[in-house]
Amino acid sequence: MGKDVKKCIFCEIEAGRAPSYRVAENDLAFCILDINPFTEGHCLIISKRHVVWWHEMSKEETASFFELARLVAKRLMEVYKPDFICQYARGRRIPHTHLFLIPSYKNDPLDRYFNALEGFQEAPKQLVALADPQSLSRVATKIRLK
Amino acid sequence: MGKDVKKCIFCEIEAGRAPSYRVAENDLAFCILDINPFTEGHCLIISKRHVVWWHEMSKEETASFFELARLVAKRLMEVYKPDFICQYARGRRIPHTHLFLIPSYKNDPLDRYFNALEGFQEAPKQLVALADPQSLSRVATKIRLK
Repeated sequence: MGKDVKKCIFCEIEAGRAPSYRVAENDLAFCILDINPFTEGHCLIISKRHVVWWHEMSKEETASFFELARLVAKRLMEVYKPDFICQYARGRRIPHTHLFLIPSYKNDPLDRYFNALEGFQEAPKQLVALADPQSLSRVATKIRLK
Repeated sequence: MGKDVKKCIFCEIEAGRAPSYRVAENDLAFCILDINPFTEGHCLIISKRHVVWWHEMSKEETASFFELARLVAKRLMEVYKPDFICQYARGRRIPHTHLFLIPSYKNDPLDRYFNALEGFQEAPKQLVALADPQSLSRVATKIRLK
């Protein structure tokens, strides 16, 4: 284990040198509670090996990792009966592959956050049209104080 | 195929009855371009079967689906050399399992959006402390106009 890996919090947790609320594991992945949960039951699926990005896992790790995600998500659905389980992975901050699993309910803060993101995804064509000089000129005429 | 499934846009695309920019497929999943991309190369991984939530796929579908996601993500890394590939799945709007795969670059709009979400995730303890009546009283005294 290299110097960098020794300092990785998820490697420390996997090795049992740092505390965690572990709820599941299989051959190549494990699952713990996120300590800053968005909703009750918010979990992290983590690769046992120190892999920076989720897309750098091997075929076997990918299968193990997402099978564990599937099983934990089904368990969360049973226990909390949310609308669905939101899942996402980026890789900023902690450079060791982890997937967020978050029980999600209509109009909870995370749902509203992602709804806003979806609005942002669909808005650009309208915004480009609004930013056209002819359009701005027309709007200025329309609302100018008489 | 039931009545509801016939109207599903992703089922229409899979059946070849609706157009798409298909870039990859395997036994149980396929990949198309998102028509409202966040960045160039933004793809969707979609289950071939009509499954509403990602956690309702079978073990075999889950393996096939995320293996395709892994391969497309690696291809996107090769072609675009972004910092990493962001991936997420919820299930609102189109009720047929799909995963976003988005080449992500430091400080691009999506990166900033998720950074803001991470700030929101860590803020609540501070906000609760700020909302304490004693804290509010102290702040009012501090900033009150003399």
